[in-house]
Amino acid sequence: MKIIKVIAPATIANIVCGFDVLGLAVNIPNDEIIIKITNIPGIKIKKIFGAKLSKNKKKNVISIALQALLNKYKKANIGFDIEIYKKIKPGSGIGSSAASAAGIVVGANYLLGNPFNKIELIKFAMEGERLAGGVPHADNVAPAIIGGITLIRSYKPLDIISLRSPDNIWISILHPEIEIKTSDARKILKHKILMNEAIKQWGNLGALIAGLYKEDYSIISRSLEDVIIEPIRAILIPAFNELKINCKSIGALGGGISGSGPSVFMLSNGKKKAELVTNVMKKIYSKLELKYKIYTSSINKTGIVYYELI
Amino acid sequence: MKIIKVIAPATIANIVCGFDVLGLAVNIPNDEIIIKITNIPGIKIKKIFGAKLSKNKKKNVISIALQALLNKYKKANIGFDIEIYKKIKPGSGIGSSAASAAGIVVGANYLLGNPFNKIELIKFAMEGERLAGGVPHADNVAPAIIGGITLIRSYKPLDIISLRSPDNIWISILHPEIEIKTSDARKILKHKILMNEAIKQWGNLGALIAGLYKEDYSIISRSLEDVIIEPIRAILIPAFNELKINCKSIGALGGGISGSGPSVFMLSNGKKKAELVTNVMKKIYSKLELKYKIYTSSINKTGIVYYELI
Repeated sequence: MKIIKVIAPATIANIVCGFDVLGLAVNIPNDEIIIKITNIPGIKIKKIFGAKLSKNKKKNVISIALQALLNKYKKANIGFDIEIYKKIKPGSGIGSSAASAAGIVVGANYLLGNPFNKIELIKFAMEGERLAGGVPHADNVAPAIIGGITLIRSYKPLDIISLRSPDNIWISILHPEIEIKTSDARKILKHKILMNEAIKQWGNLGALIAGLYKEDYSIISRSLEDVIIEPIRAILIPAFNELKINCKSIGALGGGISGSGPSVFMLSNGKKKAELVTNVMKKIYSKLELKYKIYTSSINKTGIVYYELI
Repeated sequence: MKIIKVIAPATIANIVCGFDVLGLAVNIPNDEIIIKITNIPGIKIKKIFGAKLSKNKKKNVISIALQALLNKYKKANIGFDIEIYKKIKPGSGIGSSAASAAGIVVGANYLLGNPFNKIELIKFAMEGERLAGGVPHADNVAPAIIGGITLIRSYKPLDIISLRSPDNIWISILHPEIEIKTSDARKILKHKILMNEAIKQWGNLGALIAGLYKEDYSIISRSLEDVIIEPIRAILIPAFNELKINCKSIGALGGGISGSGPSVFMLSNGKKKAELVTNVMKKIYSKLELKYKIYTSSINKTGIVYYELI
């Protein structure tokens, strides 16, 4: 029976002014999942490396997302043996659960002969996200599956639009190893916001998308402003303002909190600039008594990939 | 001394999900302004055709916008004789005051040898808008001056982005001859809105802009949804829902209230479809005991134009 290796990218959701709608996939870090299709019914998580995650079917996003797919597939005598190699740390805010949920459904779909389209796969993966964050959101699984920068226009019906990703955008990611629960990060947000601030936010989001299509880095930079969520959530992240000010002062286009944190990301025009920005992040965090991980990556334009093992 | 004729287009602001940020210029209707530069200091509005507007310097948007320009120009011994031919009815919600304010400053700038750039001209014209609507907004004067579809990312600093206008977008405009004051239409809006609704709105705006760049009429159509302002303001416009439902049912992409009303506009893919939509508007309004005007136009991509009269 076939065995494949799936490579599922980290993703950044809530891109500054694009709260709850904009996400992008990066090339580094990524998870690997080895999937073997068998004729013994059942989902078996054989090994999990790199993270302490439950192998219990009801507590693992991989089992839940895959079960959602199998419920629609409706054929018996099919089973999956799974090994998970987590390199995207759970709770990092860069789509760790999304990489698992999206990775497994894309891989299983291939092993079953591609019965489902991408929108269906996103819906299955969203069931995994429901376990992880309480809300079945799509802003990480969509870019993980489609690649590039994606916009979720609507959930009912699910309507996902793939945006242009300029080649020169590079991303610096800092993951402070502190815990912020997605559900807690949601709780501190306001249910009502000022109309004036909402208008600013959608003006910036509109400009950011125009900037991506025009490949105008000045417009992109000017629009990377979040007047609604960041002012509330920034306090959760040590040295957030220092990071932002210093990264921008050496030429980062802008950035903010990845997902609901604690990771922080910055966009830059070109690899060299991004490496400088990553170094600034490193310098600031090495002064704090906190563990952290740090990455520099281009945008992942292909999304999840997989290949057959011998 | 030189005489020019200026042709200033009507504009549609508050394009559905783009409240306060998106505007576009149309080719029909438009105003004409004849401007003669003289060496006798002073702004003289000689004639106003087509509308009952004050010739009093402090009560006419043309004088106010032109005075704002002259205050920056700071040279004496210059005067202007002006004739205004209004074809865009004041209070129609399709940028009548903006056409006047923008038309005069673009024309005067030419007659003075183009000392000011477009952003400066927009700022002068905004002073005229302050008189008309109480707020110096730019969402009509910007597309009137720049042409096409414009996005106002920010007011401080004034940051206007010209968006792609697909060639096939045509606009049907219905102007019911009732009075809605901009200031009143503003008063009924809420100061605070639900975060969930704001997210829907910016998801739609982002998708609309992506749709314009992709020239994807299906995306454009799906994103033409306003969950915040239209539900409140629609009651101000007779038969609004009937108009919208019927226009969409025969294939309009979508539409809404132009500016703060009372005009209603619909976008269509192609001239023929737009003419059908205009006819549906006509049919519905001819049953009501209300005067109305109706137009079918392509997008005006050049903005204000002018030429010298012999």
